[in-house]
Amino acid sequence: MIIVMKPQAVREEIGAVVKYIEDHGLSVHLSQGEEVTIIGIIGDKSKISSENLTVYKGVDRIVPVTESYKLSNRKFHPEPTTVSVGNTSIGPGILTIMAGPCAVETEEQLMEIAIQVKKSGATILRGGAYKPRTSPYSFQGLEEEGLRFMQNAKKETGLSTICEVVSREAIEAAVKYVDMIQIGARNMQNFILLKEAGRSGLPVLLKRGLCATIDEWLNAAEYIIAEGNPHVVLCERGIRTYETATRNTLDLSAVPVMREKTHLPVIVDPSHSTGSYKYVPAMAKAAVACDADGLMIEVHNDPAHALSDGPQSLTFEKFAKLTGELKPFCDVIGRSFNPADSH
Amino acid sequence: MIIVMKPQAVREEIGAVVKYIEDHGLSVHLSQGEEVTIIGIIGDKSKISSENLTVYKGVDRIVPVTESYKLSNRKFHPEPTTVSVGNTSIGPGILTIMAGPCAVETEEQLMEIAIQVKKSGATILRGGAYKPRTSPYSFQGLEEEGLRFMQNAKKETGLSTICEVVSREAIEAAVKYVDMIQIGARNMQNFILLKEAGRSGLPVLLKRGLCATIDEWLNAAEYIIAEGNPHVVLCERGIRTYETATRNTLDLSAVPVMREKTHLPVIVDPSHSTGSYKYVPAMAKAAVACDADGLMIEVHNDPAHALSDGPQSLTFEKFAKLTGELKPFCDVIGRSFNPADSH
Amino acid sequence: MIIVMKPQAVREEIGAVVKYIEDHGLSVHLSQGEEVTIIGIIGDKSKISSENLTVYKGVDRIVPVTESYKLSNRKFHPEPTTVSVGNTSIGPGILTIMAGPCAVETEEQLMEIAIQVKKSGATILRGGAYKPRTSPYSFQGLEEEGLRFMQNAKKETGLSTICEVVSREAIEAAVKYVDMIQIGARNMQNFILLKEAGRSGLPVLLKRGLCATIDEWLNAAEYIIAEGNPHVVLCERGIRTYETATRNTLDLSAVPVMREKTHLPVIVDPSHSTGSYKYVPAMAKAAVACDADGLMIEVHNDPAHALSDGPQSLTFEKFAKLTGELKPFCDVIGRSFNPADSH
Amino acid sequence: MIIVMKPQAVREEIGAVVKYIEDHGLSVHLSQGEEVTIIGIIGDKSKISSENLTVYKGVDRIVPVTESYKLSNRKFHPEPTTVSVGNTSIGPGILTIMAGPCAVETEEQLMEIAIQVKKSGATILRGGAYKPRTSPYSFQGLEEEGLRFMQNAKKETGLSTICEVVSREAIEAAVKYVDMIQIGARNMQNFILLKEAGRSGLPVLLKRGLCATIDEWLNAAEYIIAEGNPHVVLCERGIRTYETATRNTLDLSAVPVMREKTHLPVIVDPSHSTGSYKYVPAMAKAAVACDADGLMIEVHNDPAHALSDGPQSLTFEKFAKLTGELKPFCDVIGRSFNPADSH
Repeated sequence: MIIVMKPQAVREEIGAVVKYIEDHGLSVHLSQGEEVTIIGIIGDKSKISSENLTVYKGVDRIVPVTESYKLSNRKFHPEPTTVSVGNTSIGPGILTIMAGPCAVETEEQLMEIAIQVKKSGATILRGGAYKPRTSPYSFQGLEEEGLRFMQNAKKETGLSTICEVVSREAIEAAVKYVDMIQIGARNMQNFILLKEAGRSGLPVLLKRGLCATIDEWLNAAEYIIAEGNPHVVLCERGIRTYETATRNTLDLSAVPVMREKTHLPVIVDPSHSTGSYKYVPAMAKAAVACDADGLMIEVHNDPAHALSDGPQSLTFEKFAKLTGELKPFCDVIGRSFNPADSH
Repeated sequence: MIIVMKPQAVREEIGAVVKYIEDHGLSVHLSQGEEVTIIGIIGDKSKISSENLTVYKGVDRIVPVTESYKLSNRKFHPEPTTVSVGNTSIGPGILTIMAGPCAVETEEQLMEIAIQVKKSGATILRGGAYKPRTSPYSFQGLEEEGLRFMQNAKKETGLSTICEVVSREAIEAAVKYVDMIQIGARNMQNFILLKEAGRSGLPVLLKRGLCATIDEWLNAAEYIIAEGNPHVVLCERGIRTYETATRNTLDLSAVPVMREKTHLPVIVDPSHSTGSYKYVPAMAKAAVACDADGLMIEVHNDPAHALSDGPQSLTFEKFAKLTGELKPFCDVIGRSFNPADSH
Repeated sequence: MIIVMKPQAVREEIGAVVKYIEDHGLSVHLSQGEEVTIIGIIGDKSKISSENLTVYKGVDRIVPVTESYKLSNRKFHPEPTTVSVGNTSIGPGILTIMAGPCAVETEEQLMEIAIQVKKSGATILRGGAYKPRTSPYSFQGLEEEGLRFMQNAKKETGLSTICEVVSREAIEAAVKYVDMIQIGARNMQNFILLKEAGRSGLPVLLKRGLCATIDEWLNAAEYIIAEGNPHVVLCERGIRTYETATRNTLDLSAVPVMREKTHLPVIVDPSHSTGSYKYVPAMAKAAVACDADGLMIEVHNDPAHALSDGPQSLTFEKFAKLTGELKPFCDVIGRSFNPADSH
Repeated sequence: MIIVMKPQAVREEIGAVVKYIEDHGLSVHLSQGEEVTIIGIIGDKSKISSENLTVYKGVDRIVPVTESYKLSNRKFHPEPTTVSVGNTSIGPGILTIMAGPCAVETEEQLMEIAIQVKKSGATILRGGAYKPRTSPYSFQGLEEEGLRFMQNAKKETGLSTICEVVSREAIEAAVKYVDMIQIGARNMQNFILLKEAGRSGLPVLLKRGLCATIDEWLNAAEYIIAEGNPHVVLCERGIRTYETATRNTLDLSAVPVMREKTHLPVIVDPSHSTGSYKYVPAMAKAAVACDADGLMIEVHNDPAHALSDGPQSLTFEKFAKLTGELKPFCDVIGRSFNPADSH
């Protein structure tokens, strides 16, 4: 933590800041430049609410020099992490494809989709049973019944499964039925839910909040890991910007940025970010090319009649075509497309 | 709902869209322009996931013509609503000031602040007992103990009280101790929590999400009201933009926009939006001038030692000076500054 | 300028950074913390492209500690500046109202508007003769003829005049006819135009770019002042955000922020920012309440037939009502509403 | 153009809107829904400033149904365009790589870079001679001398050349020395410059403005083409968002979106968008994978001593490594990497 003083700051003002720091059991390092004085804090910064120092007279600003997240920080955990999910995994050398409907609608629908996405190379079945919807009048999901359908689809196809959770009750149910839980974008800073997800012990897919910074996203991961659950995968799913030609703006640069800042795997959701099936293939390929560890793609048997997010869902044909096109990209980038293929 | 077809759309494509709509029991109205055909849907739109129509060939885009929120919509409830909170209220003709510390720290601190903010004209005491913090290593609040301190401060001063809630447990506790609950920005689309807040029956202050649109914000209010709780007050607290000179960008235009779109009261939080005590007075005055129904302002006995958000907290002196300066603005705008004064 | 090294940075890496700095004739100040080493640069930073240091191994990031703008910086010019425009002025103690049509359409129209806005308290007539329009097929302005109409309106009414310029030719023409030139939002970083505006010697109204930071805006002002023209007034006119309920998001907090960072006057344009006449009065009042030095408001004799920006233009009646309502706010804030009134 | 009336709109209000439209020589098509009336305009919309209709009583909003750009619109020009630049070209089937320094510094430097980037597969040499810089105190470029160095580098290496222009003078000079001119992000809505670029007849690389929408970007292209110059290439270079981990947010989805909306080629600049050499390779690969027609990459002989944008420049080694890695992606996507290679 560095405190930058104003050019006009007088000796007494500098002294007051130094005293505040020393009163908290820390020591300081003064650097007297030609224009301004800079005060470095030495010691355990967790003892001090350094942001408060901005209220001291003569202080220009406070510059943090270390990140607040530790367990998810690559500086302290240089090796990339592989997260196991059911009988598959997410991490270096693999391209994991999660696919399925936005919302689980019926058991037959889910089973049909499961069989088809497996055939095209997906190893994890996604399907929403608890749907956070903007309007209270939209379809909110089948809840525990939807989870049971997911379990049945797993038994039938051997696919691993993931489901979004929105409450402690949903987590308690999910633990019984699926292999991985998802924290959605709207709940990325629902810290109560993050702690519950941490305590569940299940692998967690943590979607980026709609306007979350990289730093806030890693701090959200930190909430989960701090509860003793290190099985966290990050999912870039588009951020909110002024541009409306796509539903959100897919921030693909977040993939290499995250690779530098964290050891956790990072996957990309081209469906929610673009909001249109037309743009999903191009963005899926781009995600693979910039070295994402996986993809989450919405696939529906009949997008025109989907109960949620029809416009961005791929048909079986479009999904099969896409995964076929992704394979050579995987070869180039050095990822095995589908470890289940080897059987 | 209007479907705009592409210029090249052929008769069969238009026919397929019409069939889809009629199959759902609705009727259509075709408008053949020189460049494009437009299809209007007539009937109860809730029967149809109209967004799905974008997957039909020849469809250019879907244009909604009615809002999804009804109960909070001024079109259907033209008279402005007044919300009662303890022994005070929020609505037309009144400027309600909520003030207090970001976080409740000790009983003595809270009592001292309560006495001082009351003296300066606040009628509602704010104080966080459950703190959603970006980092898991930051102070997270005193929880139920903090609520008890709030209750004691109310007994002592007669101020009404408000406290943020972050979970069902927090709501269950809050109901016992405080007059109004707050849904914070990070939980604005935590739909489970919104429903719980609706069921609590307590008046709810609904803060705008960090990147929530006006439309999403009103839909969040709709979640609460749809549970049978119409006592909702909206709070503009800054949105996330590219500008970093302030913590967030206070979107004051949201006040007149909301006045047009909803009958619910709207207040403004100049503390969290600007992130600096230096900018709070100017923005508080601006909020009053554009006809906000109230203000939520952070006040602390010793900002330099606050456990949360010290930089944006006003001292007692600064708060007293500000409320003094606000009074003539209230006179101009035609709001009674502090109805409690009349006693 | 401070260089923050990575925790793992080794002695050789620190040495290479120090050598780079010293090779440029500057000296360093090392601060060895528990986690990281920080290197302060002492001396004339203009000798060094310090951002380049991020390419050195072991460097985490570069933190600037001083602003790049000097002439517009309040740190070095603590007294607020008053800018004279024709027979009026903009600065402390005055609320200057600029009003008029978005685009000059005919001489009769401009004259009628000039007479009316003067009657309601405006002291500067605005009117666009060179219109930067998104589409090449929209009305682009009357150019020099429009400037002549402005000059005639000035002769007739005594109002001072302002006109946007978009090229050197426009500046050369404007110098002959109007009292102040305006650099529009789209040209805020058209550095060639800024320099020409600086050389013109005329007072310049510098609108904030649609996504300009406070820092970039002040650097744009610096371009003008560095050419020897200190007569610069800043105009906040809304920034681009994700919110579409208003055309742009009026960043009123920029007023107190600018008050702190610069000695230049700051005015507010509630017309372009909101894009709707319905929201102009509320935002105009808010701007006055947070101590803006003036307002720029679009007024039109017949908004429904305006050639540009009709939806945000006030009618004469609405403008007269608004200025009447602004007067008591001026009294409260301590600004003389219209010095011309005193005649 | 569709006018959506408010639910409460009465017959007289609807009649007034209809009269306005018919008075302009257009006809209307009324659609009476259960909740609202919708009025479609039939005829040549350029006769009417339809936005003005929002000032009519009873009007809820105006919905445009056709784009304002025509010449750049794929709806009317379905075949993709190939743009010739010197002895190379940009368009389907080719991946064109533009590389070189941010700013031309010396003739020797430029020549060395030209030889190296050619060796690694670039076919167009970039180099800034007119630099638009945020601060007036930063290096502003060698101007015409820099252009002469570009011409010499072309003679020596056979590379085609591109240079940014910032004024009519710069365009007049550029025409004499280089093969393609660039309109930078800050000038994307400098309409005077766009028209001059159109009149120059040279191929134009049009960078996306920092906060330009897709629609505004295509309208800017329209300005150039409307002057009779159809040789326009679009360049996505990152947009401004709240995220600061990268300098801007590369909006790669703009590539497939533009592919749908326009016939013009689209290239990507991973250097300016990310602002860091570390992220350039990943984003360059992603751009190729999502079918961009080319890349613009900054390469410098000594990034630590670059006069502009050192942190984002690749060294020769890094650039050679990257182009080697790009080749297999070109094979997969079906683009010839470097047509000059065939000689």
